[in-house]
Amino acid sequence: MPKLNVLVAGSTGYIGVQLIKLLIKHNNVNLKYLCGNSSVGKNISSYEKKLSSKKLPKIIKYKKSLLKDIDLIFTALPNGEAQDISNDLFEHNVLIDLAADFRLNKASEYLRWYKQKHRSIKNIKRSIYSLPEVNGKNIRNFNIIGCPGCYPTSILLPLIPLIKKNLIKTNNIIIDSKSGYSGAGRGVHKKYKYKNLYESISPYGVGFHRHNSEIQQEISKYTKNNFSFTFTPHLTPMFKGILSTIYVDLNKNVSVSKLEKNLINAYNKSKFVKILRINSLVSTNDVINSNNCFISICKTKYKNRVIILSAIDNLIKGGAGQAIQNMNLKFRFPINRGLQ
Amino acid sequence: MPKLNVLVAGSTGYIGVQLIKLLIKHNNVNLKYLCGNSSVGKNISSYEKKLSSKKLPKIIKYKKSLLKDIDLIFTALPNGEAQDISNDLFEHNVLIDLAADFRLNKASEYLRWYKQKHRSIKNIKRSIYSLPEVNGKNIRNFNIIGCPGCYPTSILLPLIPLIKKNLIKTNNIIIDSKSGYSGAGRGVHKKYKYKNLYESISPYGVGFHRHNSEIQQEISKYTKNNFSFTFTPHLTPMFKGILSTIYVDLNKNVSVSKLEKNLINAYNKSKFVKILRINSLVSTNDVINSNNCFISICKTKYKNRVIILSAIDNLIKGGAGQAIQNMNLKFRFPINRGLQ
Amino acid sequence: MPKLNVLVAGSTGYIGVQLIKLLIKHNNVNLKYLCGNSSVGKNISSYEKKLSSKKLPKIIKYKKSLLKDIDLIFTALPNGEAQDISNDLFEHNVLIDLAADFRLNKASEYLRWYKQKHRSIKNIKRSIYSLPEVNGKNIRNFNIIGCPGCYPTSILLPLIPLIKKNLIKTNNIIIDSKSGYSGAGRGVHKKYKYKNLYESISPYGVGFHRHNSEIQQEISKYTKNNFSFTFTPHLTPMFKGILSTIYVDLNKNVSVSKLEKNLINAYNKSKFVKILRINSLVSTNDVINSNNCFISICKTKYKNRVIILSAIDNLIKGGAGQAIQNMNLKFRFPINRGLQ
Amino acid sequence: MPKLNVLVAGSTGYIGVQLIKLLIKHNNVNLKYLCGNSSVGKNISSYEKKLSSKKLPKIIKYKKSLLKDIDLIFTALPNGEAQDISNDLFEHNVLIDLAADFRLNKASEYLRWYKQKHRSIKNIKRSIYSLPEVNGKNIRNFNIIGCPGCYPTSILLPLIPLIKKNLIKTNNIIIDSKSGYSGAGRGVHKKYKYKNLYESISPYGVGFHRHNSEIQQEISKYTKNNFSFTFTPHLTPMFKGILSTIYVDLNKNVSVSKLEKNLINAYNKSKFVKILRINSLVSTNDVINSNNCFISICKTKYKNRVIILSAIDNLIKGGAGQAIQNMNLKFRFPINRGLQ
Repeated sequence: MPKLNVLVAGSTGYIGVQLIKLLIKHNNVNLKYLCGNSSVGKNISSYEKKLSSKKLPKIIKYKKSLLKDIDLIFTALPNGEAQDISNDLFEHNVLIDLAADFRLNKASEYLRWYKQKHRSIKNIKRSIYSLPEVNGKNIRNFNIIGCPGCYPTSILLPLIPLIKKNLIKTNNIIIDSKSGYSGAGRGVHKKYKYKNLYESISPYGVGFHRHNSEIQQEISKYTKNNFSFTFTPHLTPMFKGILSTIYVDLNKNVSVSKLEKNLINAYNKSKFVKILRINSLVSTNDVINSNNCFISICKTKYKNRVIILSAIDNLIKGGAGQAIQNMNLKFRFPINRGLQ
Repeated sequence: MPKLNVLVAGSTGYIGVQLIKLLIKHNNVNLKYLCGNSSVGKNISSYEKKLSSKKLPKIIKYKKSLLKDIDLIFTALPNGEAQDISNDLFEHNVLIDLAADFRLNKASEYLRWYKQKHRSIKNIKRSIYSLPEVNGKNIRNFNIIGCPGCYPTSILLPLIPLIKKNLIKTNNIIIDSKSGYSGAGRGVHKKYKYKNLYESISPYGVGFHRHNSEIQQEISKYTKNNFSFTFTPHLTPMFKGILSTIYVDLNKNVSVSKLEKNLINAYNKSKFVKILRINSLVSTNDVINSNNCFISICKTKYKNRVIILSAIDNLIKGGAGQAIQNMNLKFRFPINRGLQ
Repeated sequence: MPKLNVLVAGSTGYIGVQLIKLLIKHNNVNLKYLCGNSSVGKNISSYEKKLSSKKLPKIIKYKKSLLKDIDLIFTALPNGEAQDISNDLFEHNVLIDLAADFRLNKASEYLRWYKQKHRSIKNIKRSIYSLPEVNGKNIRNFNIIGCPGCYPTSILLPLIPLIKKNLIKTNNIIIDSKSGYSGAGRGVHKKYKYKNLYESISPYGVGFHRHNSEIQQEISKYTKNNFSFTFTPHLTPMFKGILSTIYVDLNKNVSVSKLEKNLINAYNKSKFVKILRINSLVSTNDVINSNNCFISICKTKYKNRVIILSAIDNLIKGGAGQAIQNMNLKFRFPINRGLQ
Repeated sequence: MPKLNVLVAGSTGYIGVQLIKLLIKHNNVNLKYLCGNSSVGKNISSYEKKLSSKKLPKIIKYKKSLLKDIDLIFTALPNGEAQDISNDLFEHNVLIDLAADFRLNKASEYLRWYKQKHRSIKNIKRSIYSLPEVNGKNIRNFNIIGCPGCYPTSILLPLIPLIKKNLIKTNNIIIDSKSGYSGAGRGVHKKYKYKNLYESISPYGVGFHRHNSEIQQEISKYTKNNFSFTFTPHLTPMFKGILSTIYVDLNKNVSVSKLEKNLINAYNKSKFVKILRINSLVSTNDVINSNNCFISICKTKYKNRVIILSAIDNLIKGGAGQAIQNMNLKFRFPINRGLQ
């Protein structure tokens, strides 16, 4: 089978390690280079003992010349660094970014939310934001691919089909999300050091989390209505998983079963998005260690209000798994290769 | 110091044990009888080793004649059982119920939500629902006292003052609550046995949790407006604590700082309700092992929408601690005795 | 590819569900019947939403006639029930038991530790205890296969090669094991209901846990010395994983590196047992969600004493994975099929 | 009531915060200065919201002149810093150190285990190591008091009385300890960043943890026999608590009940050390949030071997609580003041 030569930049973060664990099982991938920073010279197995039986290259420092031998580079780096790498790309390279560098279409928005100037504005235009089930169609025309954030993945998958078909009100959406602490990266402990993250639930970024901009941008593509929503993330005392509880008002004459049918239709060909029966109580546990997104619609005591539950594994469907799904789309591999 | 002779019925549940742990430190309490069911004949210390150094009476079966020697009985029993005991009361007895038997004013509502006929309708009328900071004033006129549920405590404390003064819209309130699993009682494991409750977050009772009725009843006392709200509880992988994230729209010309002042005024004499600075990120960890309720108001990107965070320890302020607060009120003990 | 028709008895316990999750990925398996008790008529997906996308047979009641169509039956039942089923077997059936019914060679030992008479003594003799890396060779001669317990798996794998070659003292071995609570089955909450299992560590079965007998029996096969050991299991606040910390004294003139070499040799062909470098700090996290056993030898300040660390996933290598490994051995499938 | 003027140096670590939470309830304490480093200028409540209702001094930088107004200084600082402060002490000052600076009697041992030269050797001689139940008697003669480490506290309390009376063998003691991760301080996340500390159990410092030296030193005071032991600490996925499982061989003609009586006698006047009935299964949960140490002796299948279980709250009896106990002893306050 033909194999892509692959480089992973940012091998030792939670997402990087998860990515490597998935890529070593993918038949079309040859993991040629693993790049890191403080980890240069070490084996990835010293970051994850589970990888100790695999023969993997040592971690090296990234430099442009490595890209010559490479078909595909994954970047799982702090925000800003994939931009610089994108300026190094040769014609034959494909870059899939798992951070936020190619999520926002406008450099001004990037500056506003990420507090740094974008250093590769020309490449923003050459990139595609790809939530594979939704925006994946045109991916073959692009060599720079931005993967959605973890929260937006859990939120956009249920909302886009409903908003596209004008089934729900777009001016009063409340999104209350709960994430395992791995979502905040290995630095979470430093960032929240006066919280007992492990036996306590804590909201953060209330009203102003960065993912607001991404959700706004993507939803706006599918509606001309004013779109306003309130999004609150919470750190939950568990390692992995995101549950988004989304409060939505129906448009006139729209029934709950119409909502359900719409979602089923939207995802009937998807291998990963599952619409459960109405009123199913989705837990993060249902999707952990898989690339699935489980969605259910729950009735309330008000006819015109429903609660949508949406759960993913933040490191897989919200991170490494989704990136591989984008690779499969881009290179026309079977969509679930490496993800079963 | 004069001491009340106290009986605890339902000594061995999570709430019962917590109650005993607090009562043994209360200077006005003589723990005369501990009652149980399958635990009869045992020592309470076999349920909680922390109590092993205290000399406490053995657990016995409840019977009416015990009430003769008793000033005060606490009932921490399955719903329905406090009703029967209330029919046994002598004139000199006070009953404080920690379950739901004396929360709802209408027997029909009780039947609807708890699926059983109320067996002491006459005593409903003779009882008071007492959230001490809000309804406590008249408690001295009643001998049967119903304590609020854990979720409603965290929800009513911030909402009632705002609704009373007509500062927020009452027709679009979203309440997303997260509770440690002790809130579901020792039976939680049986009830949710196919969930991994300890490394996963799960919604439950979506749209139709019993506490809806209690919240509806209590808020309606303070407004003539139509009051409509959506409440979703979640089981969170931690033992104790409730965080309610409440989404609220302001009435015209009401500022966030007006909201804040209103709450500060409402609770400036309270020893237990603390209004934190605007945008404070309240965690359950901040209130665990105390009788406190911490509340903060957070701004969103929309001027007229705020998020209210409210956290309590479900077994203390949402259970045993609040019951003791009601005892202190009823018997004119200092309000924080036994609760520091 | 030829497929075995497989029946799983006890589909809905932790081990049963884990077994089904692995079997559906095994190319030689056709899951023909899933059997249960209180779950009859339901879909396995109502016990594990992750299985909801697979077409699996409904849960039915076990009866002898089902065995006609079946090549292989897995029993993951309460102790005692596999015995009865073993009495139903046809000549062509293979039974792999994941409980304790075919672990002990002597019915008297079974009675002593499991407090019930063995109901199929003749089948004990026709069965093999198979820890695949150690006793697997003769498995093809037997149609009833007993799988080791979870604790013994983590303990026997490091100890047997060392004892066989007479490298360590057999009269002073201390084994301190820590397990996630899934090891105690879904009933753990009832059994330990006055413990807070989720934020606390608790020893149990101190001095007298049932697995003592199995360890004693197996080790004794490899040494004529008196074998005496002390084994203490602990419930640890995590869902899965076992770590055994084993304190061992070396025989005269035996060096730590000799120990290491011996273990490396013993398992150099094993796909699942990995001997890490001396002094490696093995965590349960290193093996979770895999069929691996990770072992390391750690030096102490005393030349003749070492600490052996051994970690497995109790539901996989200590349960369902090992059972599949035994199936692969018995039917000559590649040893790691379905287990990668 | 007369009040001591107290300074806390190292206010914002886990131990420092716990200490302040206890001291504010102590009737003989006036918290005059809180000192910190990066936290200078802040309120302690920004590190622990539970302290937000108390009027406490702002955090300032420590300097010698502060000691003029002070009766007692607690140091909860990184190892090495209390030494420097001890060189500043005026005659009237008492220093209680919660780190390791005054635990080891020999500067050479300090250098060996803590990898730094001791900078106040003269003060080592003027200091006392005080495990209050054991070495507390002479505390009034010393103005510098070293508090035991958390692991040693849980280990020395059961072992010293048994060794003093020559009831157990001193050459084959195995100590397997399990601690919540708060025991490793706020820096634990950085130190163990490639471990998933929160859903996994991990041994560390195997064979060579620093507390070895302290245990060795203290036990050697009570026996002339050779004392050799193996101690392994483990990080357990819970916030607080230590359980030590100690494997011990009895001397000839010593019965288990003799052991029990000896321990009961040794601690019959202690308010905090409780000897439970033989074979009691002690969990960390039994002692959390208290200054208690719970000890039980468990039989094994070997007459001459027992397992001793010992549990404490590492931040209280293993830290701040024990420091306050030492203060109460030193200043002749009731021993349990501030610790109930």
